[in-house]
Amino acid sequence: MTTTRELGLPAVADQPGLADAVEIWEVSPRDGLQAEPTLVAATTKVELIRRLAAAGAPVIEVGSFVRADRVPQMADSSEVFAQVKSLPARTPVLVPNVRGYELARAAGADDIAVFLSVTESFSRENLGASRERMEGAVVQVTERAKADGVRVRGYLSMVFGDPWEGEVAVGEVVRLAQAMRSWGIEDLSLGDTIGVATPGQVRASVRALAADGIPVASLALHMHDTYGMALANVYAGLEEGVRIFDAAAGGTGGCPFARSATGNLATDDLVWMLTGLGIRTGIDPDALHETSLWLADVLRKPITSRVAKALAY
Amino acid sequence: MTTTRELGLPAVADQPGLADAVEIWEVSPRDGLQAEPTLVAATTKVELIRRLAAAGAPVIEVGSFVRADRVPQMADSSEVFAQVKSLPARTPVLVPNVRGYELARAAGADDIAVFLSVTESFSRENLGASRERMEGAVVQVTERAKADGVRVRGYLSMVFGDPWEGEVAVGEVVRLAQAMRSWGIEDLSLGDTIGVATPGQVRASVRALAADGIPVASLALHMHDTYGMALANVYAGLEEGVRIFDAAAGGTGGCPFARSATGNLATDDLVWMLTGLGIRTGIDPDALHETSLWLADVLRKPITSRVAKALAY
Repeated sequence: MTTTRELGLPAVADQPGLADAVEIWEVSPRDGLQAEPTLVAATTKVELIRRLAAAGAPVIEVGSFVRADRVPQMADSSEVFAQVKSLPARTPVLVPNVRGYELARAAGADDIAVFLSVTESFSRENLGASRERMEGAVVQVTERAKADGVRVRGYLSMVFGDPWEGEVAVGEVVRLAQAMRSWGIEDLSLGDTIGVATPGQVRASVRALAADGIPVASLALHMHDTYGMALANVYAGLEEGVRIFDAAAGGTGGCPFARSATGNLATDDLVWMLTGLGIRTGIDPDALHETSLWLADVLRKPITSRVAKALAY
Repeated sequence: MTTTRELGLPAVADQPGLADAVEIWEVSPRDGLQAEPTLVAATTKVELIRRLAAAGAPVIEVGSFVRADRVPQMADSSEVFAQVKSLPARTPVLVPNVRGYELARAAGADDIAVFLSVTESFSRENLGASRERMEGAVVQVTERAKADGVRVRGYLSMVFGDPWEGEVAVGEVVRLAQAMRSWGIEDLSLGDTIGVATPGQVRASVRALAADGIPVASLALHMHDTYGMALANVYAGLEEGVRIFDAAAGGTGGCPFARSATGNLATDDLVWMLTGLGIRTGIDPDALHETSLWLADVLRKPITSRVAKALAY
């Protein structure tokens, strides 16, 4: 394995002024693993999360309190959470409804994420529920969370295109984002669930949200790299002022219910680009790289991160 | 195979005003194939070039008149050129020195590309010649070409980083670019031969050249996707006004003498992003996609284009 240091390449800021630092929201233990066919043991998940925290990841989404029959990979989230909650990183968990919220709270979680689909088709296909029903569940969870002092992030899926419905109207994204804010959810993550976004679309969506009064600082971009567009989209987002980006070590995962949703943006590739731009992430690229190689080995699959592949050469 | 049309995704301009159209300089028959271990027959190369032209590629670099003992894959460039020179596309060929120039002319070429490395190490490792000697050869070839009315492009390799020397000084890039211009070479292609550039660096280099009086319209970007940065770099280049981009169908190739130089930017991925941005290329994405799948089959290797992989899913 070649380390980034051995490669001898410049680590200097080459676009000073774009941003000093960004926050990477690491999703490999949740969005990454949930789509993997190999069932991963709780002890291995804990090891993954510990490695990520040791590499400097500031936020790690560690599990999901969804129905075990629908997402068996996440059935042990209580057990995993119990062993990682004291790590020096935020460890949010995904929660679909009040039942999931209660399980998350019982496990000790005080940092959660809820989710809605912008399109009706994906809501029914992915969640087995209409958008209206999902919205009701998110309102209930958020009310409870607010009363309990629990931090809430809101995911919006299918923001940039949908395999069933094609083009997604920006106005609908704005409407749902404002609805989430009215329920008390300030932090929003815009998901390109099937990876079809291009940079102008990212720019237009962020601008439309900002023009409607939503602070850009409250927005995250959750890009999938299915069509190789994720980093160009992140770059456009950076230029629009976005400072939070979701990614998964090694590029693991995808979405089990969306056709062609192979692969989150690899954290390795994101950190490489940000480092080149002179933007701090707090993540050690070499420790991350080792973790990604280890994870690919655990999953017995080739790594999809371009940086990890190139460095392993 | 899924076509882009079947996918039902928006083909509308989502960043109007960035650019109306760009020119893609297709390099798969030359930069792509020269690095492939499988020796490809001349008839197959001709088939590749015909397919690319039929897909709408405006410029196709079809061969290279270098030493056959160093690059055996290109030994049949005269034969290939004879069969493609009447296609409705520009068909430039690569020429390292006067000997190569004479062979290219004998084959009927009137559109050539010459090349220099920004770094001494890569010049010696890649070309077996010092930069000084290479510069002498390029001056000689360009003098002959000017006298013969032959069009000349100048490639600069290792513009953004070098595996032996690390960081590359922008001042050295500007010096060489100006030298090429003083010899009569107006069209310049900036090569990220090992794929290590990040967008701020691309931006800074283009700006440094423009600040020294070199028209941005005369610049092309030749990005390799080794670290997955190519499209983000293209996007930054677009924002700086660059309108010519090199790419290889399916992401074939690399560079046989540079460590980690796996993979040109895939034309498929470039066309996808540009189409999403509402920028015309003249290339039919589905015809290109079919060509890339066919080429991967010929080479018996997995395709590296993310778009081609996702559409083939």
